[in-house]
Order: sequence, then structure tokens, then C-alpha cells
Amino acid sequence: MTHPAHDYAEQHIDRFLEDLKHLIRIPSISTQPKHAADVRRAAEWIGSEMEKIGFETVELIDMPEGRHPLVFGTWMGAGEDAPTVLIYCHYDVQPAELEDGWDSNPFEPTIRDNILYARGATDSKVNVITQLRAIESVLSTPEKSPVNIKFILEGEEESGSETINAFVAKHRDRLSADVSVVSDGPIITPHQPSMVIGLRGIIGMELHVEGPIQDLHSGHFGGNTHNPVQALTEILAQLHDENGTVTVPGFYDNVIDATPAEREAIAGADPYYEANWKSTSGAPAVWGEAGYTIQERAGIRPTLELNGIWGGYSGPGVKTVLPAKAGAKITCRLVPGQDPARIYEVIKAHVMDLAPETIKVSMEMQDMGAPAIRIPHDSKAVRVANKAYENHWDRESVLEVAGGSIPIASTFATVTDEIVIMGYSHKGGLAHGPNENTHLVMFDKGIGTAIDFLLMYAE
Amino acid sequence: MTHPAHDYAEQHIDRFLEDLKHLIRIPSISTQPKHAADVRRAAEWIGSEMEKIGFETVELIDMPEGRHPLVFGTWMGAGEDAPTVLIYCHYDVQPAELEDGWDSNPFEPTIRDNILYARGATDSKVNVITQLRAIESVLSTPEKSPVNIKFILEGEEESGSETINAFVAKHRDRLSADVSVVSDGPIITPHQPSMVIGLRGIIGMELHVEGPIQDLHSGHFGGNTHNPVQALTEILAQLHDENGTVTVPGFYDNVIDATPAEREAIAGADPYYEANWKSTSGAPAVWGEAGYTIQERAGIRPTLELNGIWGGYSGPGVKTVLPAKAGAKITCRLVPGQDPARIYEVIKAHVMDLAPETIKVSMEMQDMGAPAIRIPHDSKAVRVANKAYENHWDRESVLEVAGGSIPIASTFATVTDEIVIMGYSHKGGLAHGPNENTHLVMFDKGIGTAIDFLLMYAE
Repeated sequence: MTHPAHDYAEQHIDRFLEDLKHLIRIPSISTQPKHAADVRRAAEWIGSEMEKIGFETVELIDMPEGRHPLVFGTWMGAGEDAPTVLIYCHYDVQPAELEDGWDSNPFEPTIRDNILYARGATDSKVNVITQLRAIESVLSTPEKSPVNIKFILEGEEESGSETINAFVAKHRDRLSADVSVVSDGPIITPHQPSMVIGLRGIIGMELHVEGPIQDLHSGHFGGNTHNPVQALTEILAQLHDENGTVTVPGFYDNVIDATPAEREAIAGADPYYEANWKSTSGAPAVWGEAGYTIQERAGIRPTLELNGIWGGYSGPGVKTVLPAKAGAKITCRLVPGQDPARIYEVIKAHVMDLAPETIKVSMEMQDMGAPAIRIPHDSKAVRVANKAYENHWDRESVLEVAGGSIPIASTFATVTDEIVIMGYSHKGGLAHGPNENTHLVMFDKGIGTAIDFLLMYAE
Repeated sequence: MTHPAHDYAEQHIDRFLEDLKHLIRIPSISTQPKHAADVRRAAEWIGSEMEKIGFETVELIDMPEGRHPLVFGTWMGAGEDAPTVLIYCHYDVQPAELEDGWDSNPFEPTIRDNILYARGATDSKVNVITQLRAIESVLSTPEKSPVNIKFILEGEEESGSETINAFVAKHRDRLSADVSVVSDGPIITPHQPSMVIGLRGIIGMELHVEGPIQDLHSGHFGGNTHNPVQALTEILAQLHDENGTVTVPGFYDNVIDATPAEREAIAGADPYYEANWKSTSGAPAVWGEAGYTIQERAGIRPTLELNGIWGGYSGPGVKTVLPAKAGAKITCRLVPGQDPARIYEVIKAHVMDLAPETIKVSMEMQDMGAPAIRIPHDSKAVRVANKAYENHWDRESVLEVAGGSIPIASTFATVTDEIVIMGYSHKGGLAHGPNENTHLVMFDKGIGTAIDFLLMYAE
């Protein structure tokens, strides 16, 4: 397909890469209050760029103290009869410190072997720039865009998405569109596009164990006082059986199992999952429920994961303390049929059942969570997206059920008839970890794909 | 018993209290390099006081860079036929900051309701001054002391006792004596003396679990990768059974159980342990092995305690990480028969057995540990000490097996035939905590007791 939008993108690709670097250099860490001004600065820069490239309306939508702004722009020049595409990205990032194991400053984009390393490189600033510059390329042509465009970006995807969820609940009409393009998450390798036809949901919680009213001397009280760290391990170790199956009563009650057809549809992605597991995880051996592939264990099956644990002394040397308290962070990845709030309740009830009278246990839900979604792989949006990727990667996408969660996708699935997930980074991009990266071999292909989706969805 | 040494002590008791305050004001925190000069200043002041009161030799024994000096003095004027008493104290203290929860400056001794609050008030400067001024009182009399005296003080009891252990190993002859008086640790209440006839030993270790080569996204890998935090809890939860008994094979193999006579002997201390457990622990319920009292669970039974645990994310909010590693600190309190090095080996072997192939486990010993000791309660030293306390408290001591460890006591038990633990503070003295204190109702009684021990041990 040749179209002047592609010529425009090709001519400006160096500037687009500089834009990506510029946005990365703004440490828009939404979970850390000290970076609130940076998050806002990122939003303002994106908003001003949207104005420059021809959006008819651009708003920074402020929310209550402590939250981060939405950026919302519209271009409705295609007319009432043309379809409307709602594009979603997020511009905030996870925390990152050089000391975490980065080979270069996480907020100074660094290119080694055509791979760009930085926090946000893959999750998700490459998607922001890809969509922004694809829209610019289309609007730069004499015919402008054949579809109307609504572009919404949030600044707290990494910290709960409260603002956008509240906004969507109140303003479904302003977001109305024929299709939601959720531009977050990776494709399967830099050289093999993939299409997500399912995402797991999520629910997060914290578990606290308290014993003595203060830290005690482990000599004077060791043996007659239940150690909260020990009690915590005793509770947590009972949440899985030896096969990795979650033992919480009710956890699997309403699970809608993947059909044989669905499992067959995604089998093409298995080799990529296996290769990625080996290179990215590097763990001594695969773990998890028997009878499922690596992809399926992290896609069509729910999990209960311990994201963190703490208690007592962790400095150098010996400290003979019997700690007063201990705690753990837990998230569950959910599959269709599982209601986040109910999963929290069954886990809480089970933990309370397991807690002995020698300690006190409390739990708190950490965010509202999101249910899993499945996307029909024969929908128009998925077909058009597949074709757009194929135009630039010269191969068909494999289908996958991704293990991650994009809570906002669950929300958009209730706003527009169709939804499609289109990401422009790769699974080896180490989202959330040290040395997060995006492969630059994908950068121009991604912009081309995003352009083609806009052009072809009108047909 | 009337003796001019007591008259002397009575006349000088106000000065002795000022000495205690003076020594407390020197922040001899041995674990903090910035206080190295303070630790030395405390040693120099003690040494010069020992010279003033008539010790024949006084040495500050320096050790390698970064360690703190020993103070060692001798008075052998009682002659070759008289017994020799080796007295041990330590003059260093734990760190303390007003912000930790102190009601007054921890290094400015403050008296409220006849209780002196300060870091070191109970652990262990009251013991230093008590022994120093008891010796002064005895040497001030015309007959001087009926026993020869060796007085050794260390400045790193709170930071590993390396220096004194090295010194004792090299100079057993210089320390030779008939009895070691370890003057550290409290009596059971300000109004009830107690005699420690057993101390637990100790061994410390660290356990590390590693899984993936880096932190992973819990969406992409949750379900197919064994979570090291989960694996750690699964291992640790298998180290005790539901009764609190340690399940490590071989852990109890060589335990020399307390005899019925020993258990009967210490039963008098049970009510004090119960009262202290309630007020200090404040945990919801007593825990531990059935068939043992609160005192026994923390005295005659060995333990495996989790002093700390860490792994993954512990900051605010949700972080959907599958951590690359996790770890825990473990100390065991040991009873007679248990060899510290062997206990480390059996725990390591068991942990390795429990470790699944989906993760990597490693362990390291954190210090060399010390074996438990038992002190025959019908020994001459214990009988004399009991009588000395009774002279001043007008009641017999209760016997106890303390749960803590005084590694140096294990060492001295190999140098002298007899050993006795004589402390002059009380169990409510909050050693190592904020508002550490000593009850001044004990101060003159303690000096009187220390005087009587010297006088009566000669008989």
C-alpha cells in the first residue's frame, strides 16, 4: 500500500525517534508523589503536540489532588458518516533506579545494537509516539483522515487508572466510537507480529500479620511467641498445592475455561512463548499447572502471585529480633468468569480461616481490579489490525491470550462495540524491569501499521 | 553481715551513682564507627579508675583496626593460696536515638520515680559500675580483698565479641581463675533476685532463593515461573510443625533434655516469666511446644527463629512483579548437646532437600555461634552468689534458665572451673529498646551483693 502518509512518516522518522527520547527523559512515574510535576509535564508536552498536528480539541483533564491528568483530543473531520476510532495510550511509567541493575541511566535513552534502552521504552512511550506520529502523518495528507479520531491518554496506568475509570464512567458519550484501539503491550518478537485475543484481569491486595506489640528479643521470647514472619510464611505456603494450583476455596468456581478451538487458535504462539520464557526468565525449570503450555499457564489460567514480602531485619549481619509484624503483597491474574471483588473476598476468607489465634491478620484490597477480557478474533477490528501488521512485517500475526492485564481494555470493551489491542514493542522489552527496551527495527514498521489501521478501518 | 567495705560503699553511694551517670554520658556505641573514639574514651576512664582504686596492673589491650579495646586489670594481693575471681563486664552499648521513642535523651541519664533512664542503664553500665565500686569498697578496707581479682571488660559485646574471643583463645593462662563472674543480664524483678543456671547458645544464618535471572512481569510469567518469594515461604513453612516443633531432621538429635530436678528447680521463676510475657510481648496468645512452660519454651528448648524476610516490592501500592529473588535471616537458640556448626549443617541439608528444581537455594552461616551452657545450681559459686543476693534482698533467688545467649559465658566456662552469672539490673529494663532503664532501688543492693560475693567466696 502506498499512501502519502507513509511518505511523510518516512521523511520524519528521525524526528519521531527524537520525540520518543524526549518523552522518555521526562520521568513520569505516577506512583511516586515527588514525580507529580514530571507526570504533568509529560501530559502537557503530549497535549501541545496534539494541538500542533491538527487535533480540533485538546484538553488536559485534571482530577482531584494527587491524581494525574488525562489528555483527550478529538478530530472529527471525517464527518458523521465515517467511522470513529478511539485510541488509548498511557504516558506514565513504573519507577526505575540505576542501582536496580540497569546498564545505563533509565531516564536517558541509550541505543546499543539498534535497541533503545530506557524506562518507558516498551511500556508504553513507544506506543504514545507511534500513535501520535501515525495520526500526524495521516492528518498531514491533503485528504487528512478517512476516520474520525478520539485520542485519550492517561497518566496513571501504573498506579490504578482511577482517573480514567471515573472519567469513562461519567462521559461514555464523549468517548463514543466504533472501535477502541488499546495501544499498550507488546507483539511477540520484533520480527513476528501477534494479536492479543484475551487478557487476564487483575486484583491486588496486601496481607498483614501482627504478633507482639513491639519487636522482641529472640532469646527471651523465641519459643513462646508466634513469630509473625513464620506465621506469614505458614499462611502463604498454603495458598498453592505442590502442582502450583491455587488452593483457595472458590477461586476457580466461575472460571469459563478456554474452548478447544480457542486453545488451538493460540497454539501458533507457543514456540515464541517457549523461546521467550527461556531467554527472559532464565529460571532453572518451567513451573506451573500440568496439562497447560507455557502460554496457557500465563494466559488462560488464573494465578495468585506474591509480589513482595517483608518483616524483621534485612540489613547486614545478625539481629536477634523476633519481629512484631510482617506483610506481603499479592496480586491475582484472573480469567473470564472471575469477578475481581469476589476473588478478593474468597482469598480474604481463606486467609482468615488459616490464621491461628496466636497472631492477628488483616487484609486490604489495593485497587479495584479489572476482569479478564476475550476478543473475538473474527471481528472487523482484529481483521483490519492483522492486515495492517502484515503490510509491514510481511507475515501474518499469531494469536495469543496474553497474561498481562490492561484494566482499561475491560472498561473500553463496555464503551465501544469493538476493541483491538495494538502494541508496538516486543515481549523481550522487559517492561517494569531493569534494561527495559524497544527494538528500533520495529519503530517505523509500527508507525506504518498504525497509519494503515486508520486508513483501512474506513473501508 | 557487717563489714567495713559496706560502710565504705554506703558513704560513697552518691559518688557511685554520679559515676554511673558519667559513664552513661559517653556514647560507647560499638557498632557505629563514628563512635569509635567514644568507645575508647569509656575504656580509658574505666582503666584510670581501676588504677585509682588499687589494681596492681591495668592494661588497655588494643586490637586490629576497627575493633575496640579490652580493659584488663589484676589485683593478686590475697596471695597464692587464696582463690582468684575473674569478673567480666562489657562497657559498650547498642545504638539509640531520641526519635526511636525515648521519653528523654538516651545519653543523658534521667531519673523519674527512682528509675534511671538511659542507653546502657541496664545493659550493661550498671554492672560495670557495680563491680568497679564493689572492688573499690573491698580494697579500701585495711584487710583489702580475701580473694585475688582479675577484671576484664570488653567494648564490643554488642558487635560480635571478636576481640575478647581472640584474646581468651591466646591468653587462657592470664585469665586463669577459680571462678568466672559474668556480670551481664538482669535479675527477674527489682524486688526478686534470680540466678541464671542455663543460657541458650546461638547460631545465625541466611537463606537465599533465586529464580528468574531478573524481576519479571507477573502477567507475562505468572503461572509458568516459580515465584522465589512463594518458594521461600514454602520452604520456611516446612521448618516447624503445627505445634511449633522444629521439623529439621537431626535438629534435636543430641539435645540433653533438662532433668525433672532442673525443671523443678526453675519452676519458681514461672510466675515472673508469665507476667513479663503478658506485659512485654502483648501477643494475642502464648505459642509454642505443648508440655513446656513459657520459661521452658524459651529456655530449655531450642528454637529456629525467622529474624527477617525480604523479596520483591514492599513500597506503596501495587507492583506487578514476579521477583527474581528472596531471602530470610534465621537464628537458632540452642540447648545443651547441640553443636552450633552441626545445627547449621542439618538445617542447610534439609533446606536443600526441600528446594524444588524450579529455583536455586543457597545458605551461608552468619557467625560462628556459641553453644548453650548449664551451670550446676549446687556449685560453690552459685551457692555463694545466692547467699550474697539474699543478704541484700532478704529473699532467696529463684532459679531460671534464660533464653538469651551470652557467648562469652560459653567461652569462660572453658577457662575456669566454675562460672556464675550475676546481673544488677532487672528484666523490665528494656535492654536494646527505647527507655532502657535501671531501678535505683537495686543500686546499693547490687553493690552490697557484689562486695559479699568477693568476701564470701574466700571462705
